[in-house]
Amino acid sequence: SRNIRLAVIPGDGIGTEVVAEGLKVLEAVGTKIEPTHYDLGAARYHRTGETLPDAVLDELRGYDAILLGAIGDPSVPPGILERDLLLRLRFAFDHYVNLRPVKLFPGVATPLAGTPTENIDMVVVREGTEGLYAGTGGVMRRGTPHEIATQESLNTAHGVERVVRYAFEKAKARPRRKLTLVHKTNVLTFAGDLWQRTVNRVAEEYPEVSTDYCHIDAASMFFVTQPERFDVVVTDNLFGDIITDLGAAIAGGIGLAASGNINPEGAAPSMFEPVHGSAPDIAGQGKADPTATILSVSMLLDHLGLHDEAARVERAVAADIAERGAGRSTQQIGDDITARVSG
Amino acid sequence: SRNIRLAVIPGDGIGTEVVAEGLKVLEAVGTKIEPTHYDLGAARYHRTGETLPDAVLDELRGYDAILLGAIGDPSVPPGILERDLLLRLRFAFDHYVNLRPVKLFPGVATPLAGTPTENIDMVVVREGTEGLYAGTGGVMRRGTPHEIATQESLNTAHGVERVVRYAFEKAKARPRRKLTLVHKTNVLTFAGDLWQRTVNRVAEEYPEVSTDYCHIDAASMFFVTQPERFDVVVTDNLFGDIITDLGAAIAGGIGLAASGNINPEGAAPSMFEPVHGSAPDIAGQGKADPTATILSVSMLLDHLGLHDEAARVERAVAADIAERGAGRSTQQIGDDITARVSG
Ligand SMILES: CC(C)[C@H](C(=O)O)[C@@H](O)C(=O)O
Ligand SMILES: CC(C)[C@H](C(=O)O)[C@@H](O)C(=O)O
Repeated sequence: SRNIRLAVIPGDGIGTEVVAEGLKVLEAVGTKIEPTHYDLGAARYHRTGETLPDAVLDELRGYDAILLGAIGDPSVPPGILERDLLLRLRFAFDHYVNLRPVKLFPGVATPLAGTPTENIDMVVVREGTEGLYAGTGGVMRRGTPHEIATQESLNTAHGVERVVRYAFEKAKARPRRKLTLVHKTNVLTFAGDLWQRTVNRVAEEYPEVSTDYCHIDAASMFFVTQPERFDVVVTDNLFGDIITDLGAAIAGGIGLAASGNINPEGAAPSMFEPVHGSAPDIAGQGKADPTATILSVSMLLDHLGLHDEAARVERAVAADIAERGAGRSTQQIGDDITARVSG
Repeated sequence: SRNIRLAVIPGDGIGTEVVAEGLKVLEAVGTKIEPTHYDLGAARYHRTGETLPDAVLDELRGYDAILLGAIGDPSVPPGILERDLLLRLRFAFDHYVNLRPVKLFPGVATPLAGTPTENIDMVVVREGTEGLYAGTGGVMRRGTPHEIATQESLNTAHGVERVVRYAFEKAKARPRRKLTLVHKTNVLTFAGDLWQRTVNRVAEEYPEVSTDYCHIDAASMFFVTQPERFDVVVTDNLFGDIITDLGAAIAGGIGLAASGNINPEGAAPSMFEPVHGSAPDIAGQGKADPTATILSVSMLLDHLGLHDEAARVERAVAADIAERGAGRSTQQIGDDITARVSG
């Protein structure tokens, strides 16, 4: 069988460092995956003014999957790289599922006092292509006392239903079979009504899944006080962004949080990336934890149908985490997990 | 001097129970405050179809302040009471500052392991009249596969600048003198740009205040992992909604979180209310903690210039909390705090 073609976008800041460790593990697990690096991010933007040239986007479309490190740098005005590179990839490749497990590994300290490990074990299914991320909106009379700035949240039946269906499938396959819609239906009445009606309708096809609803404000509280309330969470793009960082915090920190930007039909390559950002303050110092990237590699393997390899990587991470001491460098953590994968 | 006129809106669910205790404390502290009750909420809506009649709104305008319990009931479709009653009051009375202290009282257990009490001591200044709460947006082809639902976030220079100024004044008066803008400037580029520019400009007038910026996703994480990062937080309506519930969670729970919907110029009455909702699941059982309402009463007294009385109520609450046992009813907690205020 032909080699699996992987596009690698290390990106900015610690992106380069963590991706290097992710690739090390990928090699060690012994797959026929052939990586090709793409130089995209702040450096290229400064050098050439380009964020994501159309030709590169077309080329990326031909890969089986994408591994991304992190995008964003304070030297570039906010929004440029995020919108024209990261979000452009998610939109162009119709990554309508942004899948973010929130799971406390045994041995990891959660900041939540007295919370048993098994209480934090959920999957957030974040919509990835709509909502306030559509980027519509505008500004009038900028810089004057009469300035108005707007942002628009766009939600479609098509966009909501497909991600809700995906979430129900996930919930059905998990032992607890519970799905919670997180939204703010009492204020965002138009969008909330679409989301709630969609969940209600699809729920009829999944009698084995119990459904629940929680406002985003209450959900943020419950993530901290009763994380065991949640099994599968389905939510919109912005609420999903917020709640998965909070999820990362309760599950041991942003250094461990993996994600997949998934096109479930395989019409375009899916993209895997740590939830954390480029962390320019610690870039180049070997301080970043590559575990989130390595777990994203495990999700990538799983997505490509390499389930055994995915499980081996996850087991290696779990074993590493369980015996984790402080003070290892990015590279040492990568080496240690690699050794467990190979050994 | 004339009596202070207070409009009281107990509202729905546990609203009635907690407001009764708040009024008990208010009476015990010995002020010339004369309360008038208003029957608004789910019961009235079902009885008469009314949420907030114009005549009642006009009448309320004549009061010195409003004390509100909680609004919302599952028997009413989501958004009706919230939008036509609670948000209508906030908008009509131009409560552009939604002030929400996040402070861990000594003796209260935070769910955050090993966090010293003094690390959780901030004030969130949430904008109260704009953003996604404007309610603009719409739906097209409802109920069909081609449905589109939109929500709009409206942000004005006027609206952002006045709340940012208020936040800088707050920050200036606190020992740490630090202000953090929380937003999502890398995605909500139009609104984010307005907020960031406004903070930058106003900051020049407050050289003694240090300013910082944090994305809402990162802020949600830091509330859990490093709450000591925050002193005064200024943010928009929706982000403020989310982050103050999270704030309540880390500061000992929604039973303790107070808030003021403030019209700083006094052009209309300010309104004080617990952050929690109507909690229909525990309504009428004497299980609700009235402390959040009693602390809101303290904020109300402070707002009316009754600083000594406000401080006495807060001290009584702090003393009660420090010796708090489990299992007291709503009324017992109210009685205990009342006894301390009187005694
Ligand atoms: C960098 C940013 C645009 C991005 C997002 O908001 O989606 C990030 O926070 C994430 O969660 O992947
Ligand atoms: C009830 C709801 C409309 C309200 C809000 O979103 O502002 C509540 O959550 C709050 O925080 O006061």
